[in-house]
Amino acid sequence: MADDSSKPIGIFDSGIGGLTVVGELMKHLPNEDIVYFGDTGRFPYGVRSASVIQRFSRQNVRFLLMKKVKYIIVACNTASAQALDSIREDFDIPIMGVIEPGAKGALAMSKAGKIGVIGSTGTVASSSYTKAIHKLDERMEVFASATPLFVALAEEGYVDKPATKLIAEDYLLPLKEKGIDCLVLGCTHFPVLKDVIAEVMESRVYLVDSAEWTVKSVKDDLYKRKLLNSTNKPGVYQYFVSDTPDKFVQVGNRFLGKGVAPAKKIDIEKY
Amino acid sequence: MADDSSKPIGIFDSGIGGLTVVGELMKHLPNEDIVYFGDTGRFPYGVRSASVIQRFSRQNVRFLLMKKVKYIIVACNTASAQALDSIREDFDIPIMGVIEPGAKGALAMSKAGKIGVIGSTGTVASSSYTKAIHKLDERMEVFASATPLFVALAEEGYVDKPATKLIAEDYLLPLKEKGIDCLVLGCTHFPVLKDVIAEVMESRVYLVDSAEWTVKSVKDDLYKRKLLNSTNKPGVYQYFVSDTPDKFVQVGNRFLGKGVAPAKKIDIEKY
Repeated sequence: MADDSSKPIGIFDSGIGGLTVVGELMKHLPNEDIVYFGDTGRFPYGVRSASVIQRFSRQNVRFLLMKKVKYIIVACNTASAQALDSIREDFDIPIMGVIEPGAKGALAMSKAGKIGVIGSTGTVASSSYTKAIHKLDERMEVFASATPLFVALAEEGYVDKPATKLIAEDYLLPLKEKGIDCLVLGCTHFPVLKDVIAEVMESRVYLVDSAEWTVKSVKDDLYKRKLLNSTNKPGVYQYFVSDTPDKFVQVGNRFLGKGVAPAKKIDIEKY
Repeated sequence: MADDSSKPIGIFDSGIGGLTVVGELMKHLPNEDIVYFGDTGRFPYGVRSASVIQRFSRQNVRFLLMKKVKYIIVACNTASAQALDSIREDFDIPIMGVIEPGAKGALAMSKAGKIGVIGSTGTVASSSYTKAIHKLDERMEVFASATPLFVALAEEGYVDKPATKLIAEDYLLPLKEKGIDCLVLGCTHFPVLKDVIAEVMESRVYLVDSAEWTVKSVKDDLYKRKLLNSTNKPGVYQYFVSDTPDKFVQVGNRFLGKGVAPAKKIDIEKY
């Protein structure tokens, strides 16, 4: 057991978005090694059925296990909603999704008990955040709204343009009018748009960055499990994808806030 | 041979965009039956390698052949660029893509010899329109520019909003400054945004709607091959997809300009 703490943390996403979680890991757990898998060849998960998402997630976990990881983060809202229970049952390794930590963050920060949630059309239709929040406290009022263009805007780096501000107002002002005091960014792409979202919501609405709260939960969990890497050496980062790495590396820099080391293409269907 | 003219036209796309071609078919060839296949379960094609796109396209053609079509339209820019030659070789049925007709339309309409092309990042990177235009007349000056957010804006129905106008200006004003006199809409999604594109480009720039020009070419080709349906009965339309039909039907109405008949899910991997 003592050995395990020096092993890497494994993390997978349907594509690029999970890199916002990697960025938080680097910031708050700088000594941890990371193995990231972005399933770019089978992106997007949002349009697939639950059984397909579960099969993909099992393959992703198997690949990460080959890399001898000590812990797995599902940095994808769709896979967290559709496959987390199933892979937790199938594999003997601790696994953290992004939805429970986001819900916990909202509970911790909301004083008025009025919580907004934004996410992809699929995430909002699945009500996964609303259910997770109500599981923690059923008195909370939750207002969920799909903001599908935010994904494309984040991927294209269209973050500080007047058009983005207008779209953010179209999406967010109706939520603001509900009197919410905290807003869950329920998609790993959205931290890229945090500035414009904050500008529209103004300072009295706390933004729950699910990447940030996921890493908080992971850190607590690693500590409890005695799996925190206690060395002083800086973390080593490896990136794998299931399609050509060009776009991943290019867009990835924006999501990570720094250079993504060369990503390697693997054949995920073999796992 | 005489019998073949009453068979349906087959048409496939990686998803929803090809419905703009279906809309033009309905308008200009109202007596033709249509079988549409949208490969929504494997969308988007733009991120896949050429060999994968060719395999997908062969499967799509095989499915349409099972439906006893007389003619096939590849209503997808990526598949037209990457797989058209290969499937034309493999199958004994006339097949039309969207790129050659778009290039022909540009040649027909440009007087100044300065042609703009907009498309997805993949289409522009492949230079497929530039090559097709230069094959017809190498003296043409071609200015191609990727407008990736247009796809998401069209799919989300974000067509007559101020934000869309701003994004269109960001994308199109640099092309306008080059002095182009015609602009190829090199993505089957873009006819949905025709009004705002026309507003930004102003009336002296002719918009080459590749859906419209593809149907022109198909009509000519059917006539030459004596395959035009000469009956007076209205066409019958069938829609098939490779994932759950919900989003297809909902967004499809916007692309087609009228109701999409119930779409049926098929398992394309079996073909």
